[in-house]
Amino acid sequence: MTSNLPIDGRRLWDDLMHLAEITDPGKPYTRRSFSPLFDEGRLWLRQRFEAAGLETRIDAAGNLIGRRAGSEPAAGTIMIGSHSDTVPSGGRFDGTAGVLAALEIARSIAQSGTALRHNLEVIDFLAEEPSEFGLSCIGSRGMAGVMEERMLAYTDPSGEVLSHAIDRVGGNVSALATARRDDIKAFFELHIEQGLVLQDGKIDVGIVTAIVGITRIEVVFKGSADHAGTTPMHLRRDAFTPAAKTAVFVDRVARELVARNAGLFVATIGIASVAPGASNVVPQEARIIIDARSENRALMDEFLARLDTETAAFAKESRTERAVFARLSDTNPTACDAGLRELLRDSARALGFSSTDIASGAGHDAAFVARIAPSAMVFIPCRDGKSHAPEEWAEPDALAAGTAVIAEAVLRFDRLDA
Amino acid sequence: MTSNLPIDGRRLWDDLMHLAEITDPGKPYTRRSFSPLFDEGRLWLRQRFEAAGLETRIDAAGNLIGRRAGSEPAAGTIMIGSHSDTVPSGGRFDGTAGVLAALEIARSIAQSGTALRHNLEVIDFLAEEPSEFGLSCIGSRGMAGVMEERMLAYTDPSGEVLSHAIDRVGGNVSALATARRDDIKAFFELHIEQGLVLQDGKIDVGIVTAIVGITRIEVVFKGSADHAGTTPMHLRRDAFTPAAKTAVFVDRVARELVARNAGLFVATIGIASVAPGASNVVPQEARIIIDARSENRALMDEFLARLDTETAAFAKESRTERAVFARLSDTNPTACDAGLRELLRDSARALGFSSTDIASGAGHDAAFVARIAPSAMVFIPCRDGKSHAPEEWAEPDALAAGTAVIAEAVLRFDRLDA
Repeated sequence: MTSNLPIDGRRLWDDLMHLAEITDPGKPYTRRSFSPLFDEGRLWLRQRFEAAGLETRIDAAGNLIGRRAGSEPAAGTIMIGSHSDTVPSGGRFDGTAGVLAALEIARSIAQSGTALRHNLEVIDFLAEEPSEFGLSCIGSRGMAGVMEERMLAYTDPSGEVLSHAIDRVGGNVSALATARRDDIKAFFELHIEQGLVLQDGKIDVGIVTAIVGITRIEVVFKGSADHAGTTPMHLRRDAFTPAAKTAVFVDRVARELVARNAGLFVATIGIASVAPGASNVVPQEARIIIDARSENRALMDEFLARLDTETAAFAKESRTERAVFARLSDTNPTACDAGLRELLRDSARALGFSSTDIASGAGHDAAFVARIAPSAMVFIPCRDGKSHAPEEWAEPDALAAGTAVIAEAVLRFDRLDA
Repeated sequence: MTSNLPIDGRRLWDDLMHLAEITDPGKPYTRRSFSPLFDEGRLWLRQRFEAAGLETRIDAAGNLIGRRAGSEPAAGTIMIGSHSDTVPSGGRFDGTAGVLAALEIARSIAQSGTALRHNLEVIDFLAEEPSEFGLSCIGSRGMAGVMEERMLAYTDPSGEVLSHAIDRVGGNVSALATARRDDIKAFFELHIEQGLVLQDGKIDVGIVTAIVGITRIEVVFKGSADHAGTTPMHLRRDAFTPAAKTAVFVDRVARELVARNAGLFVATIGIASVAPGASNVVPQEARIIIDARSENRALMDEFLARLDTETAAFAKESRTERAVFARLSDTNPTACDAGLRELLRDSARALGFSSTDIASGAGHDAAFVARIAPSAMVFIPCRDGKSHAPEEWAEPDALAAGTAVIAEAVLRFDRLDA
């Protein structure tokens, strides 16, 4: 473990491994937002925040916040954090590393006796990963004041409404406007890279230049649940056929857009289902969710227009109805704050760590916070770029390095920002 | 209601509507095999069998049987029946009409004081519809002695093994050989047509000539659960893409085979799923079940060979593995017994009902019973050919007519077969 850091890497690592054990035992590492395990993880986090001398609360958007007031509260707030929820069968680092790095920074600064002028807040944003409601970054959307009424009405497969679920985990949707903040002077988020650039280049930290825009589209085709034996092919209205054609189209057009070398573009269908779901019944309904990402909005707009045209044509060909073609969410690419990026580069250099500029192919809470405050991200290397999988891994030294760089940047920001 | 029938159509209809009410209330009409509702339905059936003077038992294959001994038991057994399980969100007639018609025939014959020489058995075959174990006609396979060891090891999504489930509903897999019968002299099954021929032709009953062969293939593609944002298109191993290509291929080749006018051919993908099933994770696994049916085995063999070749190629194109390519079940087309068909035609004529020869595009328990005994089926018209759906419907008079034709055929068979 690297020594002489402004933080305790060992303590941070122990916290991380402890939180990882709060998982669905049959499906490590799973701690889905809004689940009982999520509540259990947060209860433990809250206790750790309080043990570090932070005053805790859950804001109206359902974000868990630990706060230490500054010596000049009017100077505003420095916020650090990420999220504690996971995808199904995810890893131990995505999100949690950023929450516990934030905790470690606040704890180390407190223990060193350093008095900050700014208030310091550690945050666990609610439901950064796409939840069962088909929406991501629920807490940071709420904090940025961009949660839409229609999103609050989304339901999960059990029929629960999102607004109810937010209240259930401690939020207060009827007072959602109170979650919006205008006092944040700087936001920092540490995250594993989830790619191969840092590992391949043997670089300690990545300073994020921009975060891709993400658009999620739900498409539902509706046909007729006819008998698989007695309904001739030409009389069918099979809802799965247009869904399958859409999947083949999405794969083909994504590769075509990549080949233009006009910036990152990826598209994925990670959710696909048919109903009623029996082998001898023609599917009456097929539902897919398309996740498309680009750092170039023009590529995204072209993709969305072609997807609209093609899915309508596929529905017609199969005598089905395209019952839903809806943008579940749609964000533009986000640039990180130039001043904070420079501060992070300087901090890395001062601590002896190598750094590089890097674009983020994944969405992050920082993209929403950037709408209301200067925001920046630090990436740390992860093994073979693997993420959203149980084998997701970052070395303890890498985590300590990234955390130390943000701690140094916080201290410098507190001195500089007047 | 037509009068002067050898059965009571009103009583039969009341029984049918009563059984239909034993359903998942949120998803009518659903009474899935091996579920608590299935047990509840069978408990009621058993009580109705006993109230009709039948001696009841569940055989080793899990079939519910009601029996009235004949005056010459050595003459053998006339069996009538169908199945009481449903598909999810199915109807009130598929299967249940045949079970309750059989009960009504036994009850009417007993109440008329007619002594049959043959034993008479009413049967509710276990799990005719594809169960959660991916297998259909479980009870009639067992009775025909063609249940395979490997099938008994199939598991449902909860992990239960099929052999355990059969025992749980009253069967006895360790003594499965005792379910095989050599005393059945004639088997009759009434069923709704599930097609449009009888309705369009205004024909009272269809006398089934042959039942299609059905082959069910499970295909599982395995790839890698990578991050949907940070994994470039060319590095992906997306398991859903080859599954989608397979669905497009199956639809196209089925239409091509139909166009040859060489007999009925249909193919359906009614089950499709992806895992882990999150919108921002590239699918690691995709599973589909293909249900293909034909009255021409040569068409089926060509389809299966091309499916094998194409799915292997699709896996390769997407850098995934075709981890499973398995025949879950495979039956040949089955001809119905010529003598029983003639008896049914004569019975219909004697009662004043019109009839026609008709092929069955659906599989039925009769196709398995035909392996061990002369078997025949009577179809009754159903509204707009709709089946496996809540709107499935047959008129009370149509049900009474089909039931009366079989009752008449049973009486004639009992006199003729010496």
